[in-house]
This record gives sequence, structure tokens and C-alpha cells, in this order.
Amino acid sequence: SHPPYLAAYSSLGGSSGREWLRPSDNFIPRHIGPAEEETQDMLQVIGVESVEHMIEKTVPENIRLQKKILEEPIGESALIRELDKLAVKNQVFRSYIGMGFYNTLTPEVLRRNILENPGWYTPYTPYQAEISQGRLESLINYQTMVCSLTGLEIANASLLDEASAGGEALMMMFAASRRKKNTCYVDQHLHPQTLNVIRTRGRLFGFELIVGDPSTWDFENSDLFGAIIQYPGSDGVVRDFHPVVAKAKAAKVPVASSTDLMALALLEPPGEFGCDISFGSSQRFGVPLGYGGPHAAFVSCTKPYQRLMPGRIVGETKDAQGNKAFRLAVQTRETHIRREKATSNICTAQALLANIAANYAVYHGPSGIKDIASRIHLMTSCLVNELRNQGHVVNGGKESPFFDTIVVEPKGIPDIKERLLKNRINLREIDDTRFGISLDETVLEEDLKDLMGVFSPSGTMTDEEFHRATEIPSPCLGTHARTSPFLTQQIFNLYESETEMMRYLKALENRDLSLVHSMIPLGSCTMKLNGAVQLRALTNQQFANLHPYCPTEQAQGYHEMMKELKHQLCEITGYDDISFQPNSGAQGEYAGLCAIRAYHISRGQSQRRVCLIPASAHGTNPASAAMAGMKVVNIKMQEDGEIDFDDLKGKCEKYADELAAVMVTYPSTFGVFDETISEMCAMIHEHGGQVYLDGANMNAQCGICRPGDYGSDVSHLNLHKTFCIPHGGGGPGMGPIGVKAHLAPFLPSNPIHADVNDSFGPITGSPFGSCLILPISWSYIKLMGADGLFNASAHAILNANYMAKRLAEHYGVLFKGHSGLVAHEFVLDMAPLMKTSGVEVVDVAKRLQDYGFHSPTMSWPVANALMIEPTESEPKSEMDRFIDAMINIRQEIREIEEGVYPRDNNVLKNAPHTKQMLLSGEWDKPYSQEKAAFPLPWLKKNKFWPFVGRVDDVFGDKHLVVSRGEDDTSLA
Amino acid sequence: SHPPYLAAYSSLGGSSGREWLRPSDNFIPRHIGPAEEETQDMLQVIGVESVEHMIEKTVPENIRLQKKILEEPIGESALIRELDKLAVKNQVFRSYIGMGFYNTLTPEVLRRNILENPGWYTPYTPYQAEISQGRLESLINYQTMVCSLTGLEIANASLLDEASAGGEALMMMFAASRRKKNTCYVDQHLHPQTLNVIRTRGRLFGFELIVGDPSTWDFENSDLFGAIIQYPGSDGVVRDFHPVVAKAKAAKVPVASSTDLMALALLEPPGEFGCDISFGSSQRFGVPLGYGGPHAAFVSCTKPYQRLMPGRIVGETKDAQGNKAFRLAVQTRETHIRREKATSNICTAQALLANIAANYAVYHGPSGIKDIASRIHLMTSCLVNELRNQGHVVNGGKESPFFDTIVVEPKGIPDIKERLLKNRINLREIDDTRFGISLDETVLEEDLKDLMGVFSPSGTMTDEEFHRATEIPSPCLGTHARTSPFLTQQIFNLYESETEMMRYLKALENRDLSLVHSMIPLGSCTMKLNGAVQLRALTNQQFANLHPYCPTEQAQGYHEMMKELKHQLCEITGYDDISFQPNSGAQGEYAGLCAIRAYHISRGQSQRRVCLIPASAHGTNPASAAMAGMKVVNIKMQEDGEIDFDDLKGKCEKYADELAAVMVTYPSTFGVFDETISEMCAMIHEHGGQVYLDGANMNAQCGICRPGDYGSDVSHLNLHKTFCIPHGGGGPGMGPIGVKAHLAPFLPSNPIHADVNDSFGPITGSPFGSCLILPISWSYIKLMGADGLFNASAHAILNANYMAKRLAEHYGVLFKGHSGLVAHEFVLDMAPLMKTSGVEVVDVAKRLQDYGFHSPTMSWPVANALMIEPTESEPKSEMDRFIDAMINIRQEIREIEEGVYPRDNNVLKNAPHTKQMLLSGEWDKPYSQEKAAFPLPWLKKNKFWPFVGRVDDVFGDKHLVVSRGEDDTSLA
Repeated sequence: SHPPYLAAYSSLGGSSGREWLRPSDNFIPRHIGPAEEETQDMLQVIGVESVEHMIEKTVPENIRLQKKILEEPIGESALIRELDKLAVKNQVFRSYIGMGFYNTLTPEVLRRNILENPGWYTPYTPYQAEISQGRLESLINYQTMVCSLTGLEIANASLLDEASAGGEALMMMFAASRRKKNTCYVDQHLHPQTLNVIRTRGRLFGFELIVGDPSTWDFENSDLFGAIIQYPGSDGVVRDFHPVVAKAKAAKVPVASSTDLMALALLEPPGEFGCDISFGSSQRFGVPLGYGGPHAAFVSCTKPYQRLMPGRIVGETKDAQGNKAFRLAVQTRETHIRREKATSNICTAQALLANIAANYAVYHGPSGIKDIASRIHLMTSCLVNELRNQGHVVNGGKESPFFDTIVVEPKGIPDIKERLLKNRINLREIDDTRFGISLDETVLEEDLKDLMGVFSPSGTMTDEEFHRATEIPSPCLGTHARTSPFLTQQIFNLYESETEMMRYLKALENRDLSLVHSMIPLGSCTMKLNGAVQLRALTNQQFANLHPYCPTEQAQGYHEMMKELKHQLCEITGYDDISFQPNSGAQGEYAGLCAIRAYHISRGQSQRRVCLIPASAHGTNPASAAMAGMKVVNIKMQEDGEIDFDDLKGKCEKYADELAAVMVTYPSTFGVFDETISEMCAMIHEHGGQVYLDGANMNAQCGICRPGDYGSDVSHLNLHKTFCIPHGGGGPGMGPIGVKAHLAPFLPSNPIHADVNDSFGPITGSPFGSCLILPISWSYIKLMGADGLFNASAHAILNANYMAKRLAEHYGVLFKGHSGLVAHEFVLDMAPLMKTSGVEVVDVAKRLQDYGFHSPTMSWPVANALMIEPTESEPKSEMDRFIDAMINIRQEIREIEEGVYPRDNNVLKNAPHTKQMLLSGEWDKPYSQEKAAFPLPWLKKNKFWPFVGRVDDVFGDKHLVVSRGEDDTSLA
Repeated sequence: SHPPYLAAYSSLGGSSGREWLRPSDNFIPRHIGPAEEETQDMLQVIGVESVEHMIEKTVPENIRLQKKILEEPIGESALIRELDKLAVKNQVFRSYIGMGFYNTLTPEVLRRNILENPGWYTPYTPYQAEISQGRLESLINYQTMVCSLTGLEIANASLLDEASAGGEALMMMFAASRRKKNTCYVDQHLHPQTLNVIRTRGRLFGFELIVGDPSTWDFENSDLFGAIIQYPGSDGVVRDFHPVVAKAKAAKVPVASSTDLMALALLEPPGEFGCDISFGSSQRFGVPLGYGGPHAAFVSCTKPYQRLMPGRIVGETKDAQGNKAFRLAVQTRETHIRREKATSNICTAQALLANIAANYAVYHGPSGIKDIASRIHLMTSCLVNELRNQGHVVNGGKESPFFDTIVVEPKGIPDIKERLLKNRINLREIDDTRFGISLDETVLEEDLKDLMGVFSPSGTMTDEEFHRATEIPSPCLGTHARTSPFLTQQIFNLYESETEMMRYLKALENRDLSLVHSMIPLGSCTMKLNGAVQLRALTNQQFANLHPYCPTEQAQGYHEMMKELKHQLCEITGYDDISFQPNSGAQGEYAGLCAIRAYHISRGQSQRRVCLIPASAHGTNPASAAMAGMKVVNIKMQEDGEIDFDDLKGKCEKYADELAAVMVTYPSTFGVFDETISEMCAMIHEHGGQVYLDGANMNAQCGICRPGDYGSDVSHLNLHKTFCIPHGGGGPGMGPIGVKAHLAPFLPSNPIHADVNDSFGPITGSPFGSCLILPISWSYIKLMGADGLFNASAHAILNANYMAKRLAEHYGVLFKGHSGLVAHEFVLDMAPLMKTSGVEVVDVAKRLQDYGFHSPTMSWPVANALMIEPTESEPKSEMDRFIDAMINIRQEIREIEEGVYPRDNNVLKNAPHTKQMLLSGEWDKPYSQEKAAFPLPWLKKNKFWPFVGRVDDVFGDKHLVVSRGEDDTSLA
């Protein structure tokens, strides 16, 4: 039952043309949920003749794509061959480049059971805490680990990358000064990419950043809002910051420290010598290099900075039955990011990678981590001795303490670069005469021997020489050795055997509802299939083990792939260039608005700062605008969900001289294709502004219409929504931006060589963002081709309209287009139910858990409503199950309306029902246990149990606990 | 907390020697469950000072290993490097060799969610049906698929390989003749390996096998018990067997047909032209080649042959609540294999691989399978036309029908072999002038073009030429096209999208208890950790995609690995040579006894046929002896579980002239190290016999004692027990045999070139058995080294003794050694409880499911008992949970004894309790729902739900249903 757009070579004979030769592993019908007969049934329910007809009625004619784009799709096996061809073009040299990125051993039990397991990579961000206790526990383990290693009290559930975490630390200190100061000291020994990304942040806020040697800083006589140091320094030296921090403290200047978690197993942590904030990367705790990401960055701080902490924080609370439960703490900060007052727009975290890092710590425990760190350090120490014995200059000839990184100036080996190449070794090339070398846990004896050999007169070492060089290692930590214990919490001291580790991971996995169980119909979040074949590159060593700063010629596979992906995305969007640097949608917004701002400045129009934003916009929109140095002006919405064109026109005229940009989401956040989008874009351009089109809803447009055609200048593309990168339970994300040609010069610049374009600089430490996950989107597009993508978007719209039509008999559907159809998502009004039954939208959401479903998006963009986006990947049978659940819930509400059950004691108010609630002690509810657990018959076979009862957010926020106590175990 | 046998380099400084340089990814503490402190605690409970002391008290001194064996262990990362080095020594040419082994596309969603998922590969054989409904459903899907494609009524849940399945078909027909006839016709067009393996079987039973052209067979005038044909033939020709089968039917001679499932999508199935039995391989339904296996073979038959069907069959039944349930049907056949009357010793199946094949059919459905088969056929048809156009002789110049395989005699291309080599193409080399070519679903256009090019005058083809050659394909099935529909059952017509497929696999997975949930303490089955790192080779293309008959020089990685594994296993066992051919323990027994029999014959002692077997032996032992042409004589057991030495001595003397062998298990099946084992072996030798030592209990001996040292001549080694190959939910297994040098000439011979040694011939179609899984054991041994293996066995014994000691206060422990200690397993007596409470051993087993545990082995080797083997991989915490459960169950039994609950209505008799039982309708049991569901507090957090209530075996066997009805769906 292939859809009609697929070649049919099923019947023997009668087949003409060469379509029959295509292999039968066509991915398109695997990606799209409804089969052909189902599509016909659904069209009939909606009342349109065909998919094409539906698109005609939904999408304005003047923006519909007319030309052919992209190549023909390829099958799964052909894709694997292409990927393998790319992989061999990446050459994995042994990397000692360091700079915040290290080789690491991903424990196989974590690789298999987290990274390669859809139970871990397909869940959504854990807003629905009751069905997310597994990853919430793991994330609080992460926070606990960061707090313990850095010696600080509060940590968040991860940030996007180390360099941008530096930007966040900068802004935390700025916010702490109540935005009254604008100067910050910055350590010259920061990694260059961190320094450059911080500079980008500072530039847009007009900060003065004084880069220099911390020992010379004069805190008393400078009006500073903060200081940023790095420990150990980028050159590997472990400096004594006690006096620096003491001076800062005396002058009431906060200090943030970039640091390295592995080093902190051996070194006094920043919290102990007085830093207020620390940040860095947890990559080397088991997360592959991936040519730059995704990796989880961390930030930790003292209690006073807690409220300024960006991103998501997991906290403890209790559930309705008084049991301990985890949930996202102080969530209100995030959904209502403080618009134009914002200093951060962080939403997406790197949950999946943070979970790997956290479980790396659970698996190794404190003694294991200390073993690893010790071995790295002792090898480095041997290397230093040997290099000195051979007559080279190490660390400028000084006896400075170090952990894993040194600087060597080789003497008497003119062919050193040739030798390195021949041995397939990469070092950090600091300048013409000096190299940085960073060791890591993957270095085996043979590697160290080869490395020492390169620096020896003959170019190799004998076994005997090597034996001598590694005989008596001695630590070189100076006076900085850590004396405090770490990872003392029970969870880090429980699971030494792989059996236990595997069971822990599986136990956590089975507490979480993910796409392996049922649909996750989140409006605006596009939870679609993450095809297994698309994920192959992630665990291919030739993609996974490349350092972001390795020579380009070693990454030809990546560059070919990115060139093609850029072409694909330009074809799909109508843009001319792409930057892969942004690691999330919000970071994409920021980068796009920076490009607009830089563009105006380049044309001598630096006064253009006004950014028009509709009232219904994603909260990140105004935050990003503020961060890009713009002034936010709101645009009104009409009742039908469309932008108030007159208001927009009025504001354009009013701010004609200052107009920088408009930010619109298309189709709108209400799920409607505005008819006037091209007209709107033209009007903005007339008034000298640029159009930023939020790409969150690209899944309704692929192959149907292109932002670059109908007037947009820049968009971010949520590769983790539209282009199949899994949500990872709250990240990674990936938000590259597409721009029209005139904005291309203003795209983010290289983080190491930051002076090569006209932009504000880099926004991420990795030149191409989270490279390792780009093959996912590349694969998806190759598998789908233009027809496949068109059909994906068309089915996304079809599925939404089918559900909207069927549910409209039971609930109010708030917004529709002129034709009476919605786009790829729709909004159900729950407000009337509150009056008739006291049921709130949250009650419906929690009751859905009893039916085994994740709630749709609650109360956004409209209060007391649910926004439903099924995506094209859901089959009709699954949508019918969800519809049945919603209809049954309406019936349950009717029972309350009719007085059968009390308003405050019914299946909705008491939802979700756990097995403990139902089976422990006496049953005292006015309805049966069966009604609570199995409201529909199929639940008896296929029941997903919420792990805890309804969580108490207020209690948790009042008694904020964001790391695990010493005796806190999960499974005991 | 590393155990003392691990190098400690934890403390900085003070470290001397170079131990510190070893990487910190030592696998030994990951494999062994108890940490060091726990080991100390457990020793104290047992009352011995140290592990070494415990071994001294348990294992007879005269057999303890005194010398150093094996290399030092290596860490996980070093292992991965070694494996990668081996992988690149395997060269994956494009294979068109065929002969029953084809390239296939494993759908990525199956690869990721079955093959790489411990939820699917770690469960045990589904004897405990209530907690095995997922794989039971999948296996009945497999049976249904086989029935449907072959057109026969009954199929089993898989056999070991196609060739040995041929042997089983032979024996089914022999058994049907009531063992009265001894001649069988065999088609000359059988694959050579099938023919050779059938010959081995026949030779040992003294059959006359007449190999020839079926069209010339004279059924009326031969006294035959059967005939075996192959359809399509090994040469690819689809012959018309209607007249042959009609003649056979007239003469009442049954016909078995070797066949190919993929071909049957297009060809009339054997069941429709009158065959009684069909067999073959399901490998090309998504299971990688793996240089020969593991693959699932199938056998199907008409109803009259049902009772003769070997191996496991899944059937439908109902549970105690009347709901449909699956379980292993007519199980009694298996556990009581009919000893000396046996014609088959099949136990292990290929469940994991059968599940992949079944889900390949679920995923593709009938139209998808037909598409795949059609494309293969049409490509073959184009190839034939093109080869003929180029002047080559195809299929001997005849216009015979074919499916995917042809024979070509090239004309005018003297350098054909060079060309093939240059293009990295393997064909089947039939003789000096002819090649066999088999196409498969992985062939892409570019491959077909290259292949045609090799046979073209210039050596390559232009696009235009290729276009012409593939323009108008036409089918060449002659009159044999299939007209009947297949895979019409709903399950094969439900899941087209990957999302649905993934959810189905996850739903099945979550119904099954596996090692990811809790310990599976099965006596004699050694359910230990299957380390993730050990499984890497399985999905490495350079191991997975090698054809078993590819040139040896292309498989150098495999051969190096096997050479080392052979060395490792010889070191561990004290043997001199190994054969990897046996695919299961039972097949190993058979091979080992054949070697003994051949040895005696070679010495002119063919009268030596008596095989002494203790009464307590595994049921397969006498079956294997019978199959090897031996006469079974039982040996008595003493009450304490040891062999009755006097009886043995008496029998030795009595049968001195006829004595062929003794089969003993060591340590004994009662879990005891017999003190007299060397004496026993010496006595057998004195009387001219050979010692077969069953390797099922090798996990108690590694690094401690060696069968080859204390007198055994041959053993099979269950790599899936002792050496970490996962059980796969009922297979694959792997049972290589080790032999002393004098038996080496009699090991199974190569299945293609069967004339190279003095043995009875090959026993499996693949020269080295299931090669793909051998790297698992190789990895395990490299990771552990001698000390690690010693510690594994020592901890296996320690864990068993700890549990025995703690449980002895509550239950009777039946057998102990002289020191009061057990070996690596122990037996709990349940018989007294029956009298006091009416509780049977099965009630305890089912009640354990409510606690989230798999039952220990029930009533074997002693009736009304449980045999518990924890293995070394279980941590103390898990054993304590199990012990607590057993103690609590004892308390529940006491409540029955004391009359608190009735004998016929209590938590044991009603176990297991499903969520439906507990929550649907009124609760009418005399105990609470809480007591039923959460008898211990930790179950509230970590509950595994049995999917169905207690299954009714009797009902199922009375109403045998072994395939799914047309409207039977699982999730609806």
C-alpha cells in the first residue's frame, strides 16, 4: 500500500521504465505515518478531495512554490553507502589539541543504552514531570556532579557549549550589578574561542572587556561588574588565584572561572578559593568530540546567584501523595523570559549529553574519576620530564604546575611537523615555534610512546627508553591539589558493575514516556520520527572522534556533507547562505538578529534598532532581540490569530527611521497561514527593515513555500524539530540560520580566527556548531527529496486538520484560516470547561498521562488552551487513540458537570494515578480503580504508568533543592 | 573500591612500577557483580576467610590448576582497537555466491531495537510464559510467516541452520517410518553443504542415501522412508516437482523440500505441490551473513508430522483469567528428550534471529516482500539477457525458469577472475569454466552495472548500455508463479511506518523480563552479563557482511580472531584443538561423541558403542549418544548427588569390550565438585573408553581447573553460558568442542569439501558455525585474562554459596560437597512445602514473577526443587533482593500452613497477578491487592508486571494453535 507518489514495481511484468530498479528500501512511507487508504479516509473526514486540494485551501496561492527543488530521494541502503563514503574522508588523527575538547571513552554501556536508545533520545523536555522522572533524576545527578566537582552550591541542567556558557556567566555578573556597570576583566589565558564568544556578547551590550593578566588586575580602582578567569589556563598552567579572588572580593567584584571538570578531580575547586561562578564543558565525561558538538556545558554558582542562573534547573519536590519527585524548578522564568529585559534567551539545553556525562560519573564514581585524572596527569608529568630530557623548552622553561596540558618549544627538530603528520598526530599549533599538548584518558602506552618518539632525536623511541621515561611519575600540581572529597553522594558510589549500571539506565528509561510509547503532540515542537538510519553517523568513529580544530583537510567528509546540507537547506528555504554555528533555535534568533544589526551598521544606519514583534511570539523572540541590542516594540494580534496588519503598518510608519526588523512566525503561532505574509514582508522592506522569520513552524512549509521567496531575509531552522534531530529529552538542539545574500557577510565568524568578517563575531566555540548531529538532517533530506518533503509537510497539515475536525465536535478549535482549515497545528479551547466543571487545562494534561499520552502544549500561545501538533509521522491509528482519549476525557468532564463526581475529587483532579495510589491501602475515591487506570479498554494491554503522582511545583520552588543529598538513592 | 587483584594507581605519588600506565577501563570489576567490601561481607556469611580459601574447600586439590595461562587482560578501549584492527583485515567484496546465504538489508529500526537492544538479546528461553509474551508473540509471528510462505500448516520456532535442518527433516521422515526403513532419495541439486550434513546424519544411522535426479526416481520399486528435493535448485533452476511428488505420494513416500523463503514470494510453495515437509534458512530476511551465522533455519510440515517436529514450538493458550496467551507448546517433548530413542537433540533455537526475520516480514508486509522478490528476480532476468547478448552460455543454454540464481559459462573473457578481483566481486566458482551468480535485495543499480561490466568485452559498461540492458525486464518463472496470497494475517499488514514498527518492538520488549530488569538465576544456564563492548563486532559491517564461503584471504580478521580464540579456549580447558562448527551445546555433544565414535572405528574397535551416562544427566546427553550411534547405559547416582563410583566401576568392567565413552557433567548437575573425577576418568581410560565432559558447568572452572588436565578427552563449551554470548531469548547458542590431540583428526569436516578428514563429516553448513558471535567470547577472554577468569569462576562459586547459606535457614539445600559448600549453583528442596501447604514448585516460580524475578530452574535435576545459579555478575544487592523475596514467599507459605489463607486461594496459587486482575472489576480475593502486587516495599518503585495470568498449558496442548489467525492482532 504505497502512497501514489511512490514508484510501483510490485506487479511482475507490465513494468516499464526503469523505476523498478530502485531498491525497495524507500524511506518516505516509513517516515510518513498514514498509509494511502488512511490518507483517503482522512481527506474525506476533512471534506477535501485530495492532499493537493487541501494545500491549495490552506496555503496562500501567491507564496506556493512553483519550481522543482532538490535531488531525487535515495533509499536507506544507498544512504548508508553515501555516509560510509563520507566517513572515510574524515581522518582520525590522534588529537592532543585540547582547548576544552578532549578525546574520551564513552563507556559502552552508556553508548548502547543512552546514546543509541530511542527510549533516551526521543523524549521531550521534561515539563510533564510525572512521566519524566527518569531523566529528571539523571539531570539532578548532573547538577550534583557539577556542584560537587566545582565546589559550588547551584548548577543548572546544562548549557549549549563552554564558550557561550562564558557569555552566560558574563551576563549573570552584569545582571547582578543591576545593569549599572559595563566593564569586566577577562583573563588572557581563556581559551581563544571562549574569549571571542564573550567578546561578541559584550560588543552588543556595549561592555568594555579588559583582557589581561589577572595577577596585575587593579580591582579597587576599576568600576567592574565582574572578572572572568580560567583555571587551569588555556596554556595548561595552574595559576594561584587566591590573591586575585581575595582582591576581587574586597572590592565586591564577582569572579567567574572557566574550568575543567576532570582537572577538578585533582585540583582545588573554584568554589573553594572564592569564585562566585564557574563554567565549562562536561564533554570529556564520555561525550564524543563530534567535530565540535553537541556537548553539555555547565554553569554553577553560589546561592546568591541562583536567581540569575540561565536555562533549566531540576529540583526536588513532592507529589500529591507526599512522595519525593523531581521536576523543572522555577519554570516560570523560562516560559516568560523577560522579553526586552532579558540577558539570556536560553531554552534548549543539552539534556542527552548531560545525561551521558552524569552517568559517566555514576559509572566511574569518585575513585574511578580520580584514577582517570591521575593517570592523565602522571602521563603528562612523564611527558614533561622526557621532553626536558630531550632538550626541549617546556612551559617557557618554568616549573609551573599543570594538569594535562603543556606548551613545548621543540629544539633541534626541524622536521617536527612532518613527523607529526607521518605519525598522524595533531597538536595545538600556538605559533611558529610552540605547540600545545593535552593528554586525555584515551591515551594508551603506545600513543604516549609515539608522542615522545616524535620529539626524540631519532623520531622513535625504543621500549627501553619508553620504560625509563615512564618509570617514576610524580605529580606536578604545586600547592593546588584538591583536599576535599567529591561525588560523595550515594548515587555516585553504587554502581560499579555493568549489570547494575545497565539496570539503572533501564529503570530510569522506563519511567519516561517517549516516542517509543505514544505520540507527543506538542504544538510548536514537532515531535516526529527520528529514523534509526539517520542516526548512524553518531556512533561512527570517523564522525565521532574529530576534534573541532583539527586541520580542515582531515574533515573532508564533514565538509562535503555540510556543503550539501547547506545546499539542501537553501533549496528548501530559498535562502542563499547558511551558518551552522547556532546550537539552538534561540541562539539562531540571536545570530540572525545580530546579522541584521551588523548589516544596518555597515550601511551607516546604526540607529535602526527597533524590532517589531507580535504579542503572540515565542518568548525567546524579544529576549533575543534585546540581546542583539535592539528595542522591542509589540504588534497587536487580531482575534483570529493573524497579525493586525493596520497596527503593523502604523508601527512601520512610526518607526520608519529606526526600524531594524520584524520577527514573525510563519505559519503563525496560532497555527494559521496568514494570507498577507508577502505583503507584510514588502512593507517592512519599504520602511528599511529586515524580516526575521522564525523557523519553528518550517514543518508546515517544506516543499510547499519558501521564506526566502516570499520576502524573509533570515530564519533559524530548528533541525531538531523539522529535520529529525531527536529532542534528546531536552536537547541537543540545532538552530542554523539561513540568510539572503546581502546578510551573508554578517553571519557569525570563526571562533578561533574571529576577525575574518563583518559580523559581531562568533556565538559558539565550535566553528560549525554541533556537527555530529548534522548528518541526521542531511540524511533525512536525502531520503525524502522534494516530493518526500512536500508530502511530509502536507501530511503534517492533513493530520492536524483531521484531528481538529474530529475534536471540534467535542472541544472548541480556536483559530482557523479563511478556508476553515488549520495549518500543521491547532488550538483547543479549554477555558469554558473551567466554568462548567472547575477543570483546568493542567487537569486535562495530567489525566492524559493516565491514558498513556503526553499532554499537548499547555496555555501557549493562548491561556487555558491546548495546542496540538501531530506531525506527519503519526499513523491514523495513533491519532484515533489520542482522539478517543480526548473524547473520553470530555465525557469524564461531563460527569463532573452533571454532578456525578465532585468538582474537587474526580479522575481529572486526582490525575495522574500511579500504581501505588491505586493498589496501596484502602481505596477511598468516589470512582473505581478501574476507571482511574483503564478508562479505555486498550489500556489494559498497553498501559504506561506515571511514576509519581501530580508534582507540587509551589512546594518545590519554596524549598528549592537542586542537588542530591548524601544519602539520596533512587532505587533502594 | 577495586578488588585487590586490580592494579591500584589511584593515589598520586608513591606509585612505583608501571601498572599506573594501564588505562582505567579495566573490565574485570565491571563484569563481576560484588565489589570488594561486599565480597568480604559474603565470605564472612559463608564462614571462610578468603576467596582462595573457599576454592580450596570446594575444588578437589588434585585437579586445581597450578600453572599460569593466557595473556594479561586488556582494557575496553584497547580491546576496541584490537577489534578494529581485525575488522580491516576482513575485506567485504560484493558477494553473489548465494548457496543459501545472501546479502540482506537489516532494517535499521530492527537492528537498533532488536539486535542492539539488551531488552531483546538478554532474556532467557521463554519457559516462564507470563513474563515472555513479547518474544513468544514474535516467535509465533515467525511460525506464521514460515507456514504462510511455504504453504504448510505447522512450523517451529526455528532451528540452528539450513543444513542441519535438512538433517532434522531426514530424521522426521525416518521416525515417521517407525524406524523401519533406511533408504532415502536425495536431490543432486541440494546445496552441497546441506547434502554433506545430511550424509553425516545418515552415516551414523546407517542410512542409504541415493543422490540423483528426482525426475528419474523410481518410488514404486524402492523401499524408501523419504525423499528430499531442493526448490529452486542449488543451480538456481526452478524445476517442476509436481510429477515427482505425485509419484512419491502414490508410493506413500514423504517428500521434504529445501526451499528459499524469498523465492516463495513469487513461486508456488512446496505445500501446494504436495510436499510434507519444507526447510531452509530465514537468513535473508534481515539477518547479516556474519561469515556463516547465527541465522534461523526453519522447518514446516503438514499436520500429520506435527508430533515429529523437532525443537521448540510456540502455541496459543489461555491464562487463568481466560485471556489469550502464548507459551511454548508440548514442552514435555523437550525436557524429556526421548533419551536413547531420540532422533533429535535440538534444544537451543535461534530465537533472536527468528525474531529479526519475523519482524522483517511484519515491517515489509506481503506487498513489500513481493516488491523485494520481484526486483531481485527482474534484475536476474536482465542479467541473463545481457549475458546471453554478450555471447555467454547461461544455465547450460537452456531456457529454464529461475528466481535469483543462474549459472554462467563465460566465453571469450580469459581474464574473468582478474576482473572479478579488481572489481571486488565474489561469484560462486562451480568449476573451472562455470560460475554461479545469485542476486539479492542489496544489489543497487551501480552493482548490477559493474557485474554486467565484468562480462562485457571492454570490462565495463556505459550508462547507455546499462540503460538498454535494464529497460524491459520480464519474469522467467515459467509455470511456477505463485498464485496464492501470503502473509495475509493482520500482523503483517499493520505497521508500514517506522514509528509504528518501533512502538510494536518496544511494546513487545516491555512485556518480557530480561537481565535489564533483574537477575535470572537459572541453574545450569549461566545468565551472566553480556558486556556491551563485547557485542561491537555484531554490527560492524566488516564482520557482519562476509559470506561463509568467501575466499579465506578475504576473512583474515576472522581467522586471526578464531586462531586466538582457539588458543584461549585450549588454555582454559587444557585441550589441544577446537572445532567451532557446533551451533549449540547439544550439537557439540553430538559432534564430540561422533569424534569418539570415529576414533574407535579408526582403531578397529567399531564394537565400542556403549556410552555410560549418569541418571542425572542433561536430557540431551543420551539423545546425542543415540544420534552418534551409541548405546546408552545409565549410571546410578548417590544420594548426595555424586556419581555412584561402584556402579560406574561395575559397568566399566561389564562393558569393558564395548565401552565407547562416559558422559559426565562437572561440577555435577547437582552443583557439586565430585572428589573422584580424575580417578573416574582414569578408570574409563583403563577400560578403553573416552571421557566426554559436558561443558555446561564450565563457569565454575575457568582458571581453577581444566577438563583436559584431569582426564577428559572432549567437551563442548557453551559460549552462550560461560563465555558471554547472550541467550537471545532462546538462542543463538554456540557449542564448539575442545578435544585432546588424539581426537583432533575426527573433528567435523568442512561442509563444502567434506572429504578432508577422518570424521563422519560436517554437522553444520558453515565451516566455523556462527562466526559472527565468536568475537563476543574472544573479547570476554581478552578483557578478563587468567586472573579475571579465575575471579569470575570464584565469584560464581562465592555468590552461590552466599545465597545457599542465607536461604538454608528457610529452605532445605539438597546437595553440598564434603566441605559443606556448593559449587556455582545449588538446589532448594520444595517438596516438604507441598505437604504442609499444598504449594508446588510451580507456584513459587509464578509467585516470584510478582516480585519481578524469573524463576530458577524448576524440578531439574531433582523433582520438586529449584536450582539456583546466580553467576558472578550479580551484585550482592540484587542477590539480597532475591533472597528477601524467597524469604517473604516462605512467610506467605507459612500463612497457608497456619490457615490464614486457604490452600487453593492464596497469593501463590493465584500468582502471577496482572494489573488487569488487580484493577478490573471487584476484588474478591482473601488478601489485599497491595499484598498481591507489592509484597515488598521496593516493588512500589520498581515493579515489573507479568503481562498475562498463569498460562494453561494443558488447554493449549489440547487445542494446539501454532500460527496466528487472520484477524489476530496484538496491540489493538
